[in-house]
Amino acid sequence: MGGDHGPSVAVPALDRVARDLAGRGVRFLVFGDEAQLRAEFARCPGALALSEIRHTERVIAMDEKPAQALRRGKGTSLWAAVEALRDGEAVACVSAGNTGALMAISKLILRMASDLDRPAIVASWPTARGYSAVLDVGANVTSDAAQLVEFAIMGEAFHRAVHGVEHPSIGVLNVGSEDVKGHEEVREAHRLLREMGLGLNYFGFVEGNDIGKGTVDVVVTDGFTGNIALKTAEGTARFIGGAMREAFTATWRTKLGALIAGPALRQLRARLDPSSVNGGPLLGLNGIVVKSHGGADARGFANAVKVAADLAQSRFSSEIDNNLKRLAAALPSAVPAAEPTP
Amino acid sequence: MGGDHGPSVAVPALDRVARDLAGRGVRFLVFGDEAQLRAEFARCPGALALSEIRHTERVIAMDEKPAQALRRGKGTSLWAAVEALRDGEAVACVSAGNTGALMAISKLILRMASDLDRPAIVASWPTARGYSAVLDVGANVTSDAAQLVEFAIMGEAFHRAVHGVEHPSIGVLNVGSEDVKGHEEVREAHRLLREMGLGLNYFGFVEGNDIGKGTVDVVVTDGFTGNIALKTAEGTARFIGGAMREAFTATWRTKLGALIAGPALRQLRARLDPSSVNGGPLLGLNGIVVKSHGGADARGFANAVKVAADLAQSRFSSEIDNNLKRLAAALPSAVPAAEPTP
Repeated sequence: MGGDHGPSVAVPALDRVARDLAGRGVRFLVFGDEAQLRAEFARCPGALALSEIRHTERVIAMDEKPAQALRRGKGTSLWAAVEALRDGEAVACVSAGNTGALMAISKLILRMASDLDRPAIVASWPTARGYSAVLDVGANVTSDAAQLVEFAIMGEAFHRAVHGVEHPSIGVLNVGSEDVKGHEEVREAHRLLREMGLGLNYFGFVEGNDIGKGTVDVVVTDGFTGNIALKTAEGTARFIGGAMREAFTATWRTKLGALIAGPALRQLRARLDPSSVNGGPLLGLNGIVVKSHGGADARGFANAVKVAADLAQSRFSSEIDNNLKRLAAALPSAVPAAEPTP
Repeated sequence: MGGDHGPSVAVPALDRVARDLAGRGVRFLVFGDEAQLRAEFARCPGALALSEIRHTERVIAMDEKPAQALRRGKGTSLWAAVEALRDGEAVACVSAGNTGALMAISKLILRMASDLDRPAIVASWPTARGYSAVLDVGANVTSDAAQLVEFAIMGEAFHRAVHGVEHPSIGVLNVGSEDVKGHEEVREAHRLLREMGLGLNYFGFVEGNDIGKGTVDVVVTDGFTGNIALKTAEGTARFIGGAMREAFTATWRTKLGALIAGPALRQLRARLDPSSVNGGPLLGLNGIVVKSHGGADARGFANAVKVAADLAQSRFSSEIDNNLKRLAAALPSAVPAAEPTP
């Protein structure tokens, strides 16, 4: 029911997933207003055959505060979907709804894995070398050094599980690469990651332009900076896409060039399409919860569902367990805090 | 002498400026090692005719800390250039050197204008609607609400002076548009800008993707987030540029398309070239200081010099004076701080 478009996007998205993941044994539990859902499913028989509709009376509004969502959330579609995950009826949960509410409700119902402090949303960021995991991109507005270290641990497990890289490299996002750069939280996280003996492949500080280069596999940042970096990159891609369209439709000559280069241009457009990377898993919970962009179209929402399916069939849960054991082992020997820098 | 390339980029850049701004009466005072400079000027007679070389023995290293640069900076090329600005020998100062040192030395020698607290570096960001001023993009690593308000005042004066827009709109960069979103500093700055009666055209919160859209003329943010957003956008543009090149050189067919669309593609490349927006003025000082990207090429450095020339011939100084008078007038009636939000 969530997002800017509700079932009119979510149901056609399931139809795409049913087609694209045929033979993978994927099935859907769909929570929301049954009448609205049935109206959409009538046009999507492929999705209907794999779906079970669970009627809920209420929804959480997009502008509801997390505290309010926790108080009055029981019985809403979002709440019921997360409960189904906890109860083992589902292996993953996808929502395009209110991010703060999704996070608060998931945290309450599923609880955090082990001693992790807060969930983080991870983005799969297309780079010159493939994909990098960037986190947090919006679950939190502030993060201290210890939380940034947890993000590194979660992101590393995620990247290995999803991309099969044995020792993903990790960088902390900063305004420069020297040890003295940045504010206290990033400098302390940098020191901890270097000195804690977590057995991670820690690269050091990276800068904003390193994300697109793919300098490291996992980019660690607080949720405020990460969210703004992600949306700024989306805005830049959209701006350039617009400039390209203008350039290629300016004269008969450029139109002809575009026509001839057509297939490559279409491929390029697909490669740069933000919906192809939609779907940000919330890491750190006991269970797989994936946040779709609220404004996603059916293709984008379908991608978020596929991310959830892939994650459920990956080794992510055991990877993160292993990482957390290493964290627990490293903690007793954790290095004392450095002297504050003048 | 600063930046990754020193005089081998700076002197050819002056040659370009001499050509591009011919008739504007621009002249150069060039500080640094005379032998090195003369060797470069030998190949750039156009620049030499407009330049006076001032020999300095020493330089500030790119990795020197600001405190160290302040202690031992006297007599370096950077220090001497800022002194020339203070003494009225120059109307603007351009450097590709160490940002922290440039800021600290400028602050010491020129002092802050009126009661402003800290300088901010402003970026002219290409958007779908023209250019927006984004600040701070790296002068500071943290900024409280009062400093963000000062950035709004400085950025507004800058945008009006440079782009002639009578009432530039202002937004505060955040992770969402609702009042409750974001951390305390942005929420408090938002409240102050709305309620202080500064007579500014305050729009409200904007998100990362609003920068590329050109939703507002002036985007206010702390130097950590702003620096990362700017470099992330540069990285994204470079990534897309690379993907475009790949797409157009993939087959004979796309090569032909690119050949035919050639002029438009070249125009597009020029429009997206980061060196066309190089040059970030340090706002808030008694004097015009422009920071060039350390890695800029001659075209990029030339652009930074042109930014300085344009700013020196604009009404920026009187615009910011007027804004500061409005700030001083608003302060006695400043609204008390809101109750902390739970």
